[in-house]
This record gives sequence, C-alpha cells and structure tokens, in this order.
Amino acid sequence: MGEGKRKILALAGGVGGAKLALGLTGVLPADELTVAVNTADDFEHLGFSISPDLDTVMYTLAGVANPETGWGRQGESWTVMEALGHLGGETWFRLGDKDLATHIERTRRLRAGETLSAVTGDLARRMGVKPAMVPMSDDPVRTMVTTDQGELAFQDWFVRLQCRPTVQSVRFAGVETAKPSPALLDMAGLRGVIVCPSNPFVSVAPILALSGVRAGLTSAGVPRIAVTPIVGGQAIKGPAAKMLAELGHDVSALGVARYYRGLIDGFMLDKEDAALATDIEALGMRVRVADTMMRNDEDKRRLAADALAFVDALC
Amino acid sequence: MGEGKRKILALAGGVGGAKLALGLTGVLPADELTVAVNTADDFEHLGFSISPDLDTVMYTLAGVANPETGWGRQGESWTVMEALGHLGGETWFRLGDKDLATHIERTRRLRAGETLSAVTGDLARRMGVKPAMVPMSDDPVRTMVTTDQGELAFQDWFVRLQCRPTVQSVRFAGVETAKPSPALLDMAGLRGVIVCPSNPFVSVAPILALSGVRAGLTSAGVPRIAVTPIVGGQAIKGPAAKMLAELGHDVSALGVARYYRGLIDGFMLDKEDAALATDIEALGMRVRVADTMMRNDEDKRRLAADALAFVDALC
Repeated sequence: MGEGKRKILALAGGVGGAKLALGLTGVLPADELTVAVNTADDFEHLGFSISPDLDTVMYTLAGVANPETGWGRQGESWTVMEALGHLGGETWFRLGDKDLATHIERTRRLRAGETLSAVTGDLARRMGVKPAMVPMSDDPVRTMVTTDQGELAFQDWFVRLQCRPTVQSVRFAGVETAKPSPALLDMAGLRGVIVCPSNPFVSVAPILALSGVRAGLTSAGVPRIAVTPIVGGQAIKGPAAKMLAELGHDVSALGVARYYRGLIDGFMLDKEDAALATDIEALGMRVRVADTMMRNDEDKRRLAADALAFVDALC
Repeated sequence: MGEGKRKILALAGGVGGAKLALGLTGVLPADELTVAVNTADDFEHLGFSISPDLDTVMYTLAGVANPETGWGRQGESWTVMEALGHLGGETWFRLGDKDLATHIERTRRLRAGETLSAVTGDLARRMGVKPAMVPMSDDPVRTMVTTDQGELAFQDWFVRLQCRPTVQSVRFAGVETAKPSPALLDMAGLRGVIVCPSNPFVSVAPILALSGVRAGLTSAGVPRIAVTPIVGGQAIKGPAAKMLAELGHDVSALGVARYYRGLIDGFMLDKEDAALATDIEALGMRVRVADTMMRNDEDKRRLAADALAFVDALC
C-alpha cells in the first residue's frame, strides 16, 4: 500500500459488524480504523433514543458486550424492566439496567442539542473504545419494513414480532434528506473499505443509501471488499437469510455478492461456500475464500487480518 | 359525626405526610380516605417527570418505601446510576433501579397525554395502594426558592445543595393558573381535613395556594386539623425548622400554628411541647396534645386514631 494510505473504513451493523470491527482493532492501530455504524434501526422507545447497532459495536469494542444475546451488556441485571412490568409498562424491548444508563445519557444529551456523533464519540471514549466510531448520520433515518401485516417500524418487526411477518420490501424513511457522517465521504488517506458481515438489507443498505455515499466510495479508487454474512445458505446471526428469500434473492453468499455488485471489488467467501467462487467472480469481483466464522477473539483477528490482506491485494 | 360524613381528606407532602397517611389506612376503610399530595417539588430530570412526594406516599402506602432514607424503595439497587456515573452522567439525584421504572412509566404516559391524576391512580393501584391518592393538581407547579445564592429550583436547593443556601422566600411558579385536583374542592361527605405533619412552606403551602383551595376548605364547615411537623423546636425530618428560622418564624410548633392560622381549627401538639398549648389556643384554635412521633406502624395508627378523634371532637 502507498505511504499515507493507512485508514480502513469499516461499514457495520450490529453483531457481525461489531465482531469484525473488534478483530480489526487487534490488527490495526486505533487511529487507522473508523467504524461507521448503521443507525436506521434506531428508534424512540419509552422516551429513550435507542441506537441498537451503535451500542452493540460500542459494547463489543469496549469488551463489555453480552456474547450470548448479541445485544446488551454482559453481567447485566433487569431490575428496572421487572419493576416496569409490575407497573404495566412495556417490556417487549429488553433494556438491561447498565444498558439503560447509555440510553438515558444519550437521550439527555441529544435533547440538549448535541449531535449523535458527538454523543457517540464521547460515550465510546468513556467506555474505553479506542478507534473512531461514528453513526452513519446525525439525522434520523428509520427502516420501515413492508410485510404481509402492513408496514412496520423495524424494531416492531425485528424484536416485538420476532421477524415473523413476511418481508415484501424495505425503505429507509428520512434517508433522502439525511446527511452522511463526514467519515463516510472522507477519502483522504483511505487504504480500503470493508463491508462487515452485517445484514445487507437493513444494516449496510441504509449506509449506502445516504446521499453521496455509494458514489463517494466507488469513485475513491481504493479497494472495497465485503465479508459474507451468509455461510452455507444460513445467516450467522439475525434475519438476513429470511430477508434474502422473501425479497427474492438467492439465499446464499452469491445472492449477497449480487446485491453488492457495483459497490465492491472483492468478496470474502466462507470456505464452506468455496464452490460459489466462480459464479461470484463472474459478477466482476475478486473472491477470497476464508474461514469467516468468528467464534472467539482469535477468529476475529484472523479474519480481520485476512480481510486486510485482501484489501491490500486489490490495490 | 353525621351519617354520610365519612370522608377524610389528608393533605400530604413526603415522609411525614406518608407516615400519617399510612396510619390512617390502618384506622379507616380505604374508601373513606383521600390523600392529596404536593406536586410542587416535582421536576424534570434526565428526561424523566419525577414526583418525589407522590412516590414517597405511594411507596409508603404500598409498603415498599425505604424506611432509612425517607425516599425511594426498600431493597433498592443502583446499577443504572453507577453505569450512568461511568458515562459521565448526572448522578446527584439518586434514582434507584426499581424507582426508575416508576419515572419511566409515568413519563411515558404523561407524554402520551394522560393526566398526572390518571397515571398516579393507576400506578398506585398496581402497587396495591387502596385509598385514593391524588396529585394536588394535574398542572405543573414548581417551587422556586430564593436564597442567598439566587433563585433555585426546589430540588437544586433541597438535594443538590443539601438545603445549605439560606432561604429568603419561596414561590410556587405556575400556581396562579394551575387547577386544583377535584378532590381538593369536593366537600361532599367530608368528615374532616387533616393537614399531615409535612413541611408547611414547601409541602402544604403549595396545595393551599391553588386557586379556591383555601377558601373551599375553610368554608366547608368541617373540622380541619394540623398535626405538628415540629417537635421540641426540631423538624422530625427535612428542612422545616431551618426554613421556619430563615423565613422569620418561631422555630416551634407555635410558629407552625401561627402559619396555619385561619386555615385550621385544631392543632395537634407533641407532648414534649405541651407548654405551648396556651399560646396556640390564643390563636383561636383548639389544641390536642399527643405523642406525634411515628417510629413504627403502631405509632402511626395510634396517631391517626388520635387525629380522627380530634376531628370528631371538633364537629
């Protein structure tokens, strides 16, 4: 890579994105990584401004994420939720006690007029997160899912209805006017872009749908790769496979690669899906086969190192 | 007492009011007691609508109050506050985890357009409170304390600055336009009014300052008594004695009785202060000497029974 081209921009949603971002912190100096995080599944609930993906990334990078659930903090307690249930309050979206502090403080500061970027940066620093973490936008963008039960706000579909309603289409309310984070358009010193193994439709698509982001990334002249979120026709976590099927895509890494055609020039495929390499290369992108499963921190670092090597090989 | 004249209206602030109200529930059927609670020390904090006196009364009547602190719930945990402190949030007003659920649910319902009366009634019922509990008003009234450090919102003075600034005057912002709770003006079936041993200046005064309340009570033709919040020149709890002194009153039950002149026709004096009886009677009110200290539930019931007997003796 050229001298001065040191910065990796990672696009991330929740769990999968957070895991690879953590891997990247193990193989990159903190000042060479910027994680831009989806905020289209943010929502307002019980009076709080909740940013599920930002929190998953923040907790993961801070080493306090709950590894079992994929959301929330480890060693969490549920005293507030239990008491709220006794009072007849809404408890379908589980907010742990420690996690609630994040929502209280974020909400207070947003109401006081701070930007989501400023609040996110400060909360992350206080939690000990070293690399830059930015929301995709300071403006509200909200994923709306059109289903066989009508249009639903994302968390209604995802958490309250547990992804059961069949998805017909997805839109990102507010994305036309939302300004992308400056980090998404700042190509100075960029070494490459890594699309993390997050849900293409609801985690990565909103980032790309922000005005100028897709064009900015594709015209930057730096390698852009995606790490597959689908292995063996299954999503590693979350509803990506279900959405692929319901939205008429191939439920496979090939389906994801097709979806990212025009955006990326490299696709990291799991070794289990190595047979798809030829078809994906036929889309006009390079393929690297790797073990993409991130079971532990060593896996995360190894995959991150693999992804970096792939980026540099595409220079 | 006359047939049909069965209802006791108790005016209450926080701890002292809550204790006597609990005593009254032990000697009255639930449907014969209405507790009207001060809301002038309510405030908005961290995005929550907090009603300290309503909560103290509710938790006390529900049997879940913290007997040591005089506020909050027993067996409380502090996970949210601790996590909030780590994030640099404001922690000077201590909100326990269980207590926080009350604020979350109250705030959510108020924002959804419900009245404070409706929310209070429902939360109290869900916590098992039997008698009627009403906020003095559904409209915001806010105690402002003018001190040697300028005008302060009540909780700033009371909690954050721990009552240290010298009080010069007190006003109740919004009281001119706030509508009193219907319970404060409903004299049908009223047996008597009991002003609980709460702070006269910041707990009872705001209730009396609501439009029509003082006139309604004094013209109702039913006995009205106050139970002293000052014993031996000391407040049993809170800053009442400090305020009496700083506002130029006698720091004694006599000072309190003078303050209530024109409102009440009976004053319950502690046995320790029996020597003040003559001076208080000279104000034009009857005096009953009792043991007003409420150390345990039996004390509360005994004092409540005494207060009821005093009410009936004034018929």
